[in-house]
Amino acid sequence: ASSSLARRCHHRSTAMLDVPFLPFCAFLGTLGLLCVAMVGTWCQHWRGGFSLDGSSRTFNWHPVLMVSGLVVLYGAAALVYRIPNTWSGPKLPWKVLHGSLALGAFVLTVLGLAAVFRFHNAQGTPNMYSLHSWMGLATVLLFSCQWAAGFGAFLLPWAPAWLRALYKPIHVFFGSTILLLSVASCASGINEKLFFSLKNGTTAYKLLPAEAVFANTLGLLILIFGVLVVAALARPSWKRPDSDSPDSRQVRDALGG
Amino acid sequence: ASSSLARRCHHRSTAMLDVPFLPFCAFLGTLGLLCVAMVGTWCQHWRGGFSLDGSSRTFNWHPVLMVSGLVVLYGAAALVYRIPNTWSGPKLPWKVLHGSLALGAFVLTVLGLAAVFRFHNAQGTPNMYSLHSWMGLATVLLFSCQWAAGFGAFLLPWAPAWLRALYKPIHVFFGSTILLLSVASCASGINEKLFFSLKNGTTAYKLLPAEAVFANTLGLLILIFGVLVVAALARPSWKRPDSDSPDSRQVRDALGG
Repeated sequence: ASSSLARRCHHRSTAMLDVPFLPFCAFLGTLGLLCVAMVGTWCQHWRGGFSLDGSSRTFNWHPVLMVSGLVVLYGAAALVYRIPNTWSGPKLPWKVLHGSLALGAFVLTVLGLAAVFRFHNAQGTPNMYSLHSWMGLATVLLFSCQWAAGFGAFLLPWAPAWLRALYKPIHVFFGSTILLLSVASCASGINEKLFFSLKNGTTAYKLLPAEAVFANTLGLLILIFGVLVVAALARPSWKRPDSDSPDSRQVRDALGG
Repeated sequence: ASSSLARRCHHRSTAMLDVPFLPFCAFLGTLGLLCVAMVGTWCQHWRGGFSLDGSSRTFNWHPVLMVSGLVVLYGAAALVYRIPNTWSGPKLPWKVLHGSLALGAFVLTVLGLAAVFRFHNAQGTPNMYSLHSWMGLATVLLFSCQWAAGFGAFLLPWAPAWLRALYKPIHVFFGSTILLLSVASCASGINEKLFFSLKNGTTAYKLLPAEAVFANTLGLLILIFGVLVVAALARPSWKRPDSDSPDSRQVRDALGG
């Protein structure tokens, strides 16, 4: 009886924490758009704007495209299957939406890489030496494998059921992992860019000018966005009820399914 | 019949991915110790070793204590409840172990903060201006709240059951979040330290000397450690079977529990 009481208490108290998915999603969307607006404002207002001439104004495309693609649009793609409408009816349109958003994110990411390589090559700076670049490139390589494997296993018609079932938890795991690596790369990139930019001729980073406060805040918001998307993906009650997780298998087994 | 076949296929194929917890844990322990050994080697071999005199040799305690405390020992504390032995018998000894490991991690973390503040103050460098420092301090503040609230709710005897049930999913969520913020902070810190150290009088970071390859590799290993610990925490089949997650409540309800 006391255990049943504790269980009822538990039911009531966790119900207090229940957040509906769609308002949470609207909040995440607002936060994501705020991150894109802030990274654009940073580059436009403090870093001289945008161009394709190989100068630091070419570099400025790099943070904007990475935050838009590999963080915000990627996060939107990852959350598609948490929309309750996707849980019934034909799966194919939702798969196409998920794959298309991810492809859009990938295209922005590749353009973001092109911007920084073009800038380095024009300036005679070596590519791929910093930890930021290693993390970032590892993230992009994982993302390209993730997209190709997801396309081959889930969108092309000839993958057998056992292969899809085998690959699905791997795809889900790397889906969250890539986003976490992506936001960690953003944080190290913003930190590095502020050390580069805020020195000779401007207020040093260590004196915390307005630009530094603004970009530090952007970095924290990107981290919060990434953690909240991964938390939303991991939340059991937001997963498709007939998902193939071990827990729902236990339910099915318990019901003799 | 075809759905039952697909289900059997699924059972077989996900069983192929099943990793037993304890060997995985041994692997994580090895990876964690490797990270501690590498950060110690970096500071000893390339950065001049350790002292308490306020020089950069005082700073060197900062990365070593942070990686040891806020990454590796923290990860060990987080995984305590995934050990199957903790699932039966009295809970109190395991709670004390979890809280003690976390307290140990917290003490190392505070000493790690003291090292960098002492270094900055001795050099006349301002504290708390970089994104790395903002992320790191946010992580440590969250960790201190997490420890105090966990102690108050789960170890002190007078917290009511409804409060424990309400707080538990919050504690679990922040447990993973703090570790992710911690490894992201480590990555930005290693990146920043290499830019500071590898310039005048040494081989520039951009020329990728051996120290840079070594510390970049350390950064990637720390990220992999953090992602694997969070993945282990999130894995449903490694959670305590009677845990209070919504999924097990569904099982209990399905069984009329």
